[in-house]
Amino acid sequence: MKFTKMHGCGNDYVYINGFIENVSDPESLAIKMSDRHFGVGSDGIVLILPSDTSDFRMRMFNADGSEAEMCGNAIRCVGKYVYDNKMTESKVITVETLAGMKKLELTVEKDRVTYAKVDMGEPILAPGKIPVVSTLEPVIGELVVVDHQAYALTCVSMGNPHAVAFVDEITDSHVHELGPKLEVHEKFPQKINVEFARIKDEDNIEMRVWERGSGETLACGTGACATLVAAVLNGKTNRKAAVDLIGGQLIIEWDEATNHVFMSGPAVTVFEGVW
Amino acid sequence: MKFTKMHGCGNDYVYINGFIENVSDPESLAIKMSDRHFGVGSDGIVLILPSDTSDFRMRMFNADGSEAEMCGNAIRCVGKYVYDNKMTESKVITVETLAGMKKLELTVEKDRVTYAKVDMGEPILAPGKIPVVSTLEPVIGELVVVDHQAYALTCVSMGNPHAVAFVDEITDSHVHELGPKLEVHEKFPQKINVEFARIKDEDNIEMRVWERGSGETLACGTGACATLVAAVLNGKTNRKAAVDLIGGQLIIEWDEATNHVFMSGPAVTVFEGVW
Repeated sequence: MKFTKMHGCGNDYVYINGFIENVSDPESLAIKMSDRHFGVGSDGIVLILPSDTSDFRMRMFNADGSEAEMCGNAIRCVGKYVYDNKMTESKVITVETLAGMKKLELTVEKDRVTYAKVDMGEPILAPGKIPVVSTLEPVIGELVVVDHQAYALTCVSMGNPHAVAFVDEITDSHVHELGPKLEVHEKFPQKINVEFARIKDEDNIEMRVWERGSGETLACGTGACATLVAAVLNGKTNRKAAVDLIGGQLIIEWDEATNHVFMSGPAVTVFEGVW
Repeated sequence: MKFTKMHGCGNDYVYINGFIENVSDPESLAIKMSDRHFGVGSDGIVLILPSDTSDFRMRMFNADGSEAEMCGNAIRCVGKYVYDNKMTESKVITVETLAGMKKLELTVEKDRVTYAKVDMGEPILAPGKIPVVSTLEPVIGELVVVDHQAYALTCVSMGNPHAVAFVDEITDSHVHELGPKLEVHEKFPQKINVEFARIKDEDNIEMRVWERGSGETLACGTGACATLVAAVLNGKTNRKAAVDLIGGQLIIEWDEATNHVFMSGPAVTVFEGVW
């Protein structure tokens, strides 16, 4: 079976063309292929499939075999895959996901996609829907106490829940000690992803993320979106800013006219292989 | 550039045919390819090259770009690579390494190597050569005190230094807490690899390893050899036994006639790719 290893900001998946390859048991294939010593090594696998409602359909399976709804870093690579492999000639495509239909705009250089912009939809700001136990709406500067110290968090859902803390300097202790304690704090009934963000200027943010159930990761697309929304809500940046993650840079824009958040970032092919 | 991803007991490298491919800067290539998110992902790269003195020559580079002398798990894969790719028809081959010439015997099923036996040479038992500060020779049951508790260690060098502790049950605390403390104990002037071994019966050993400079790894070929030698010196097993590691099983034999240690184990091709 042919596959392509791709990454977006270091968030890496094995991409399989479901128009050609027949994958009968994606759950167990994801577990086998994702193993970083005995398999190909990845954060999971992505199947690119025909769709009845969109140009393409993606299904993604995490390294533990569970099916994931959507991933902003992965869907950019799907755009690159279908264009580079001449499965479409269009630079604007729609992709069916478990989180609904997503629209992509592709940037092409020398017949290859280098960059993609994804419509990530509207941010959810109502506390009950994020969910977070709070009397504020939007939830700006909610004080959450951990180890007798209060942290002011701004909470946003991008389909999954995020709490953003603005700090003067992001430390390992923030991410690895405070992150896991905030993740399971009683104010977050479905736990929460925690972003630590430093404002560099009104157009630039540095961010590290503690992901719910995963720990620190190189890049979290929805986390970058939530961070930009939180920064705008707090009057700290413009509505469009670059977010620097460990794995690379994403450009996030919260469009005033549509209320949608757009995420732009790189999509990279690492190698092609035969399994 | 073509490459093949292979592993021996989960110890995984990217193998490159230096007869065909020209690698001008293996150090930086190793760093790039070994990255598990932005590259192929591996413990390092192995170049298979012509030799003036042996059938083949291997050079290996760790994920940090440093050149390594030899690795028992990697050299088995070299044997599989050259035979499966019809670069030799012989099932007994010699390979030049930075640790000298090594001899391999290949087990073939359906034209493919499944298993290889490597002559790992003679164990070194003199304390000054291991090195360990001890008045014993061989160093059997040297008492080493950590946190006011004494541990009886048997010390063996297989070209690199090992200290073996026999325990009734191997725990995470042994490997992750005691291992790093023993690694840097003042009795070991060049630090040491630490093996925790449980004797299942006279033909079977279970082992976990704390590798000097690397932490816990899935499999350590020289560690498995040192453990079998230590078990024989302590009268705990026969001269040939199976050693179960996290990454798989190795068969180790300390041959009485030659005093050489032989390691047999699997070699697996995971996939072929184009970088």
